[in-house]
Amino acid sequence: MSTESKNEQKRILTGDRPTGKLHLGHYVGSLQNRVELQDKYETFLIIADVQALTTNFDRPEQLSNDVRQVARDYLAAGIDPEKTTIFVQSMVPEIAELTIFYSMIITVNQLRHNPTIKSEAEQYGYREMTYGFLGYPVSQAADITFCRANLVPVGEDQIPHIEQTRKIVRKFNNMYGDIFPEPEALISKFPRLMGLDGKSKMSKSLNNAIFLSDSAEEVTEKIRQAKTDPARIHKDDPGHPEVCTVYHYHQAFNQSAAAEIASQCRAGKIGCVGCKKLLAEKLNEFLAPMHNRREKYLAKPELVDQILLAGTEKARQEAAKTMAKVRSAMKINYFTS
Amino acid sequence: MSTESKNEQKRILTGDRPTGKLHLGHYVGSLQNRVELQDKYETFLIIADVQALTTNFDRPEQLSNDVRQVARDYLAAGIDPEKTTIFVQSMVPEIAELTIFYSMIITVNQLRHNPTIKSEAEQYGYREMTYGFLGYPVSQAADITFCRANLVPVGEDQIPHIEQTRKIVRKFNNMYGDIFPEPEALISKFPRLMGLDGKSKMSKSLNNAIFLSDSAEEVTEKIRQAKTDPARIHKDDPGHPEVCTVYHYHQAFNQSAAAEIASQCRAGKIGCVGCKKLLAEKLNEFLAPMHNRREKYLAKPELVDQILLAGTEKARQEAAKTMAKVRSAMKINYFTS
Repeated sequence: MSTESKNEQKRILTGDRPTGKLHLGHYVGSLQNRVELQDKYETFLIIADVQALTTNFDRPEQLSNDVRQVARDYLAAGIDPEKTTIFVQSMVPEIAELTIFYSMIITVNQLRHNPTIKSEAEQYGYREMTYGFLGYPVSQAADITFCRANLVPVGEDQIPHIEQTRKIVRKFNNMYGDIFPEPEALISKFPRLMGLDGKSKMSKSLNNAIFLSDSAEEVTEKIRQAKTDPARIHKDDPGHPEVCTVYHYHQAFNQSAAAEIASQCRAGKIGCVGCKKLLAEKLNEFLAPMHNRREKYLAKPELVDQILLAGTEKARQEAAKTMAKVRSAMKINYFTS
Repeated sequence: MSTESKNEQKRILTGDRPTGKLHLGHYVGSLQNRVELQDKYETFLIIADVQALTTNFDRPEQLSNDVRQVARDYLAAGIDPEKTTIFVQSMVPEIAELTIFYSMIITVNQLRHNPTIKSEAEQYGYREMTYGFLGYPVSQAADITFCRANLVPVGEDQIPHIEQTRKIVRKFNNMYGDIFPEPEALISKFPRLMGLDGKSKMSKSLNNAIFLSDSAEEVTEKIRQAKTDPARIHKDDPGHPEVCTVYHYHQAFNQSAAAEIASQCRAGKIGCVGCKKLLAEKLNEFLAPMHNRREKYLAKPELVDQILLAGTEKARQEAAKTMAKVRSAMKINYFTS
């Protein structure tokens, strides 16, 4: 699809806080979807480093690595910089300006009652919430609207934030005219990927993740240690694939063979060692093209920087267009007629 | 004092929300002081239009007039654009960026307990506080520090805000190194000026103000109607200057003659009509040079715009220097070495 026909189409805003290497859970939960969506929509992909500061304000020194790491993971996963604008949040000051404007049309109580903010504050164990943490849905509204995005692909836990963005946009548009499209959530249909421990969703901090950048040896070793059906002691015991992490991964990454593997497992015809070997091969096959693309960027790290700088420049051009509309609508464009 | 020697001196940040014409209360409470201070300190004078939005978000259309009005009042009152940098807050996006950073090092409770925020919320009759209103001391900290100001001339009610700025600066400096001077409050020694009604302090919204832009006729008429000692019915009744608004103004604007007028009033030797006439003459004499300066800017309104644009440009240069320091200290200057 050409750029021109895409421009007439809807625009997507999506992104992540740069908090380290991306893993298979990210791929299944969002990256795969983004790689598909970039062919259908004009996509803006934000590396939300300022938002990462809301929980890491005392240790920003790792952000420089994390920003490049996540960009490399995007590119390795198949995000195409010709189709997707990858940019760095802290380098788009217009997002901060919009955040300030929006902070005047949302009340403290509306933010306090946001269920995701509540549960996240508990999750982080915050005794006291910072002002910025309470307001991060406001900043997220600015992330989405600075480029006048129409669609935001999200998981279910993010729906309250999108609702808050929609409320802000409606209120802003009611006061000043139709400046922003009311963005819609594009709910992800992809399930959460279980971690290697079989207990929690895959997560870097739980140390149960296979990273997109893991080598074939690392993947094979991690799979070798993955949790399987605990009731299965001997190779020819009948297994229960429905409780087995390895089978869960076969379903996700080896779909065509998954049913056959399940029936062999139930019949005690395939052992866990062999089943894991099959999975590791499949996963490494799946990750191989990502490693190839990653090699290119590791060999020339300046390419990643160039992509981020060009993407950020494009994001700023969109931001400038938006702010010109906003200032004009608010009648605070004092020195332009 | 030359610019060079001033640069080695301390820097002041001061300013107002642009909410309309300035009056004698502003002059006595801050303008007079600023006109003196600009000879001793490098002064940045902020027209805080974004902060004005925190209470006027639904009617920003008047800001364009108000920004120019307050600038004209500054210039008329003797603020010298060669000595003082007058600039427009909404045109310095770095202030929004700093606000976002600071919002991560101050808690919601710290803001909630700010006594000035509390009493102002009551004053405005807010049933629910907006997120931006709760956070305006954070934005004020950004106003003060974006130009690395050392001193902030304030009234007593603003001390909690300066304390909050100092806390933010200390915390920021502790984490990232000595980026900002810890700004100090320069407490104004000037009393509040009573309004023409003799009941409340002079205030535009209470309709009891003499504006710096009032004509001689308007001043004379307003003084003619000013509240005096209610116990004094006849011209030769002995008066009580201590309860008389007109005497209060003599003390402020006719100091050398005030004692004599008080004793004549107490003796019933001067009537209210005569006393008011004296005051009106004195006030018009006092306002005349302001009118002269104002005429120049009314005749060439583009001069005011030029001063604001040049001041804002200078403010942005300082802001850029500050943000370079901040980004470097926070290690989020990813693409500069």
